Amino acid sequence: LIAGNYDEAKLLLEPSQPVDIADAIGSLPLILQALAFRLLKKNEAIEVYEYLDPVVQQTLLERLRSGEVLEIVEKMSPDDRVQLFDELPAKVVRKFLSALSPGERKVTAELLGYEPETAGRLMTTEFIDLKEMQTAAEALSLVRKRAPFTETIYSLYVTDKERHLTGILSLRDLVTADPSRPIGDVMTRDVVNISTNTNQEEVARAIQRYDFLALPVVDKEKRLVGIVTVDDLIDVIEQEATRDIYAAGAVQPGDEDDYFQSSLFTIARRRILWLLILVLANGLTTKVIAMNDQILKEIVLLAAFIPLLIGTGGNVGAQSSTVVIRGLSTQKLKSLGAIRAVVKEAITGALLGVFMMLVVFPFAWWQGEGPLIASAVGISLISITTLAATTGAILPLLFDKMKLDPALMSSPFITTVTDIAGVFIYLSTAKWLLNSSLT
Amino acid sequence: LIAGNYDEAKLLLEPSQPVDIADAIGSLPLILQALAFRLLKKNEAIEVYEYLDPVVQQTLLERLRSGEVLEIVEKMSPDDRVQLFDELPAKVVRKFLSALSPGERKVTAELLGYEPETAGRLMTTEFIDLKEMQTAAEALSLVRKRAPFTETIYSLYVTDKERHLTGILSLRDLVTADPSRPIGDVMTRDVVNISTNTNQEEVARAIQRYDFLALPVVDKEKRLVGIVTVDDLIDVIEQEATRDIYAAGAVQPGDEDDYFQSSLFTIARRRILWLLILVLANGLTTKVIAMNDQILKEIVLLAAFIPLLIGTGGNVGAQSSTVVIRGLSTQKLKSLGAIRAVVKEAITGALLGVFMMLVVFPFAWWQGEGPLIASAVGISLISITTLAATTGAILPLLFDKMKLDPALMSSPFITTVTDIAGVFIYLSTAKWLLNSSLT
Repeated sequence: LIAGNYDEAKLLLEPSQPVDIADAIGSLPLILQALAFRLLKKNEAIEVYEYLDPVVQQTLLERLRSGEVLEIVEKMSPDDRVQLFDELPAKVVRKFLSALSPGERKVTAELLGYEPETAGRLMTTEFIDLKEMQTAAEALSLVRKRAPFTETIYSLYVTDKERHLTGILSLRDLVTADPSRPIGDVMTRDVVNISTNTNQEEVARAIQRYDFLALPVVDKEKRLVGIVTVDDLIDVIEQEATRDIYAAGAVQPGDEDDYFQSSLFTIARRRILWLLILVLANGLTTKVIAMNDQILKEIVLLAAFIPLLIGTGGNVGAQSSTVVIRGLSTQKLKSLGAIRAVVKEAITGALLGVFMMLVVFPFAWWQGEGPLIASAVGISLISITTLAATTGAILPLLFDKMKLDPALMSSPFITTVTDIAGVFIYLSTAKWLLNSSLT
Repeated sequence: LIAGNYDEAKLLLEPSQPVDIADAIGSLPLILQALAFRLLKKNEAIEVYEYLDPVVQQTLLERLRSGEVLEIVEKMSPDDRVQLFDELPAKVVRKFLSALSPGERKVTAELLGYEPETAGRLMTTEFIDLKEMQTAAEALSLVRKRAPFTETIYSLYVTDKERHLTGILSLRDLVTADPSRPIGDVMTRDVVNISTNTNQEEVARAIQRYDFLALPVVDKEKRLVGIVTVDDLIDVIEQEATRDIYAAGAVQPGDEDDYFQSSLFTIARRRILWLLILVLANGLTTKVIAMNDQILKEIVLLAAFIPLLIGTGGNVGAQSSTVVIRGLSTQKLKSLGAIRAVVKEAITGALLGVFMMLVVFPFAWWQGEGPLIASAVGISLISITTLAATTGAILPLLFDKMKLDPALMSSPFITTVTDIAGVFIYLSTAKWLLNSSLT
């Protein structure tokens, strides 16, 4: 390509999948991206463009002639266009909107009007709607005619005069039906639909639950306005998983997609808030120890076990909160119920504490030079693990009940809460043991 | 239903989606499940059965008459049948296998022969294969005929005499094609295929990348043996995300699906291994502190800042490892490269350390009664956060390079590593500061 061997490059791009071509273009140096893109055939170019990285999409917008750009933007499918506009500065979007053909402009403005991360934003308005009276043969010829302009022809929708959804049928139903029968007889009247303001996570869960290829979206007046297809939702499922994983690591969710392209300060900004909250909470641990410095002065070696105890407590708490948060997010916890989940985790925590004491107690006896420290470590170990597991289970459930995101009660947060309580339990136990052994 | 009002119950189940019926049956008391299930129509019963929870499936197997059971198992689609057999004891599976019709038996035994979590296990053998010579009209009538017996009719496959895959076409291509043209002219020859032993995670990634509804699976001789459909892969994507999230919380991955049904000991067993490894590692922290007890004896208040320092280090390390592990798992880190990722994380760690010092230093001055502890805390805070971020990035990348699962380098592990190093850095700094201030 650098050598200007266009024909060869063209051949190279020929037999590939659009997404592979998009990747290849994205990996080229900036100045060659526009060149390579121009080599594509018109139809292919639009498909490839939809698969390009947002950053590359924007570079191309700047480097292609405005006529070329307008043609691409005009021909993109409405949902992909809205996704692109989301990334562009408002000024550029306004320019594009006014240059679009009236029909496309109206659709795009409408989609942009819905809240981000709702079904309204994800959906495409390019679907096939049929009427109950049409025969299967008529419907099939209509599908043939409209196939080039719609996102999917496999899910077909039947509406009445007021555009209310009355039934769905699949292309499979249509193809296998008696050609002369009206589709009203073939369609399924029991329709699962979602509303334009349904959250994308819920949409993903519905499509996953019913194994559908697409879901119809209706507006407030129950009129069919668009469909959401399974390929868009796979990305949503991955994005939501990333969000949960980030939350579990106390990384503030942002635009997860472009993390590996964002600047150092953006990255730091997304992490500092949680760190500051946690560092302030950890200040309490410092206070608790400072208030108990009398006992530490008497037995300095007690300090040596603080990291082990609070570390273990933190790990047990992290395990519990991980399992509970994931269970809430996949809705699998429902079958067990909140109270039984907490009880189960509490007992698990106690069990784990007992197991670990078998290792830790002898170690503490040896390293702590005697039974006093070993007993303090052992007793507090079991209390801390039980408490940590309980807290790790309760806090996310409580947040969920309060309609807050349970993922905020992430492992680092649970760890910090456990730290404070753990140090307090440990030092109090040691003080109590010391006093009883003296009297 | 309890009152024996069967007709009403039947009506109630009538208009629902199979998955909803499956849920309703699953929530019934054990003795009623079989009763409710018998009320379903034959065809519906099989579909509903495929959606039932594995536990309920097994209960039904025991409670229905063996004739009924055999009919269901015979009519299930091969991939769902294999999934059921995976859960059953080997003895029961052998009994079922021998009772299946020869054709179904052969297919099922074949699928069971592939490794778990590979494309071979996920795929169904019920697909439509066409020949290049057939006209679009011929092909369409073939599709019509075979529609009731295949999982999808939207992805069609073209094979030669040796059953080698030569092309694919979608039902959309077929429906819109000129009826008299041979499908060899319409099909796409550039086929993305996977092999029977491809890991399910890779299969999911491929289907997500290309936005396909199904992927063809070929054997070692490149013959088409099955297809994997998108609905099976959505479950895989969720399962893999759960696995990553569990790993991030140091919960050993097991059968994630049935967690909320497993016993306390199973749960504890899945967590104890990691906890024991971590507790042993934390023993090193104890050793480090015990070896430095001289300085703690002199300044007991130093101990009060240990949890804060190692806690913060752990949190920063957890953030870095979370982002890097997720980046490896979604393959988005590729665009940045390993070395640049580590450098980026190291600088971020240092930045975060400086930010936090602005809060922690004054606090340590006040609580630690003077500049000595404050300086020790401040200096080690920056060193610890930098080290933690670097370790959090390097260890998962190293594991990935060594072909081990990077998710094993989870937050709790990074936290523990940081604990040991953090205590050492802190106490050494304090010792050095004390010595310099004395001389």
